[in-house]
Parts: sequence; C-alpha cells; structure tokens
Amino acid sequence: MLTPESDPPAVLVIMGSVRAGRACPTIAGWVLDIARASSAMSYELIDLRDWALPMDDEPGIPARGVYANGHTRAWSEKIAHADAVVFVTPQYNWGYPAVLKNAIDHLYKEWHGKPAMIVTYGGHGGTKCAAQLQQIAEAVKLHPVATMPAITLTEAMIGGSAIEPQADFAVHVEEMRKAFAELSGALQTGS
Amino acid sequence: MLTPESDPPAVLVIMGSVRAGRACPTIAGWVLDIARASSAMSYELIDLRDWALPMDDEPGIPARGVYANGHTRAWSEKIAHADAVVFVTPQYNWGYPAVLKNAIDHLYKEWHGKPAMIVTYGGHGGTKCAAQLQQIAEAVKLHPVATMPAITLTEAMIGGSAIEPQADFAVHVEEMRKAFAELSGALQTGS
Repeated sequence: MLTPESDPPAVLVIMGSVRAGRACPTIAGWVLDIARASSAMSYELIDLRDWALPMDDEPGIPARGVYANGHTRAWSEKIAHADAVVFVTPQYNWGYPAVLKNAIDHLYKEWHGKPAMIVTYGGHGGTKCAAQLQQIAEAVKLHPVATMPAITLTEAMIGGSAIEPQADFAVHVEEMRKAFAELSGALQTGS
Repeated sequence: MLTPESDPPAVLVIMGSVRAGRACPTIAGWVLDIARASSAMSYELIDLRDWALPMDDEPGIPARGVYANGHTRAWSEKIAHADAVVFVTPQYNWGYPAVLKNAIDHLYKEWHGKPAMIVTYGGHGGTKCAAQLQQIAEAVKLHPVATMPAITLTEAMIGGSAIEPQADFAVHVEEMRKAFAELSGALQTGS
C-alpha cells in the first residue's frame, strides 16, 4: 500500500523492438507523454538495445534466481526495483518479438505480483500479439490490466513513413488514459 | 506432387533451444530416430547455435525478401530448399523460446505453403507453447499438421538429470508416428 508520503511508483516502459528503422521510440514516446500528463507515477523508458542479453544464455533455470552472468544480474536488479511495467511492442507474425520474450525469460520472480500494461501496434493493431503476451505475463505472475491499447499502423507507416502520434493516434488517447488509470489503481490497491 | 522417382522430401528438424544444459538434442535425436524408422523422408537436424542470427537485425521487412545480411541470406536459402519443417522446442513461460521466434521472424515467404510439425516439451508437455507456435506458423503460412506431440518432463529432467527417451517417452511413440504420417501425407498431396 502506498502512502501519500511515498515516492511515486516507478514504472518501466519497455520497448519490444530493437530493429533498425523501428517505430517503437516514436510510439513509446507518445505513450510516455500521455502517462506523464495523466498520472503521478515516475516513468523510465527501457530500450532493450541498451541491455545486452544474449539469447537464452543463462545455464540455470531463471525461476531459481541464480544468475551466472553480470548482464542478467543487472537486468534482475532493474526489474526487481520497479513497481510496474508497460510493454510497448510491435506484433511480429501474430506474436511477440524475440527480443522482448528473451528479456522476459531471463528472469522470473522479479516480475511476480507487479501490475503490467500491454500496448501493441501493427497493421491490425497487434491484438494477437497482445493476447500471446498476456499469457506470458500471467506465466511470470505479472498482473496485466484489462485495457490493452492496440494501435493500427497504416501501410505507409509500416513501410517507414514518418509517424505523427498526436495526429495519427488521437483516437487512442482515451483508451491509453484508461489503461494508465487501471495501472495506477492496481498500484494503489496493491493488487 | 511427388513421384516415386523423386528424391525423398527434405525435412528440417529445427531445435528451439540453445541454452546450456538443454535437453533439446536428446529429445530431437529421439524424434529423428522415430522419423527415420517410420518414413522415407530425408531429415536434417538444425541447431540454431550454428546459425548466428542476431536479434531482429534485418533493417527491412522480411516479407519483402530483401535481406541486408549474409547470415539471413544463408538462412533464407536453407529454409527455401526444404520441403517441410519440424519444430522440436521447449515451452518457456507458456510460450515459445526467443531464439526460435527470431529464426522464424528473419524470413517470410520461405516458409509459405510448407507442411510443418510441432513437438513441444515441458513440465506440462508444452501445449500452451504449441498453441502459440501454431498461430505463428499460420502467420507465415506454414501448414501445421493436426497432431502436436507434447512431451511431459519430470522435475528431475528439468533440473538436468539424464533423459533416456526410449524408456521415458515410450508413451509418446505412437503419437509421434502419427504426426510424421500426417506430415508425409501432406507432402504427398501437396497440401
């Protein structure tokens, strides 16, 4: 339970794409703007490019929490100290990107009991990715909030044309605020 | 349509784990033994450790088939020349391993129209992984056969104790033969 005297909850916004030419920083930046304008939480953007987590490279089972590699221990500490996480991710072939799954699979107990929020984007908004990622979140005992904004990109955007989120995604603002309100509520009730 | 004079169909058995201490080579080896004893196809084991495919590193969209990297072009050629694929993969956190998704996402048209088979393993057999992977397979227009063997590992096996597939997995042999019969049938009818 948070008291008014507490520091604001620390929320990590984790980007699911490391691809060259990715739209993810633009979209995550817009998500952060909405978050900061509509809630009193503290946000940090996590770019998995900055976290060199080689593919499935821990020899042990992450559920045991004994990590052989310094990069895993650093990642463990980062997630352990967060109060909630927001995934902002593209849909790839009706699922989640490998880089995001790899970052989740490196840990286990660090995710437990934290409220989470899933934002997807893609040609059809990425709802199939969201559903798969929701299942993964539940496996690691994150608590995803009910509202999962799914942002539809045009063919041109997917092809690399500039995105102007405030204009292009205006239709999603209310839903995004609703999701953040749910996240904030989950943090306050400790659910 | 294959004629009796054709070379036998070339089937790639792709392992979904690169983790140290993985059970995958033992399980995939047992799958291959059953395959070779029960069908006239030609099998090759693919270890993704041998295919250095950095995470989502193609700058373009794989569906366009224009690859910037030599490793992607080699992977493209490997899959393009196969007639069918078999995935043998652990379930991680109710989903597919990052390394397998990354290998699939590097390509697109190379997978189209090929019969596929999904074998999973895990503490509960990996059926949740199989369902998610089936959705990915459909996204890239692979044609998964209906039978998806799901092999339950004991706690001891997950912890690293030796696996003796012929004894430990005897209960799965018939189901495995059925899946390979379906794969062979799909290749013969060109479905």
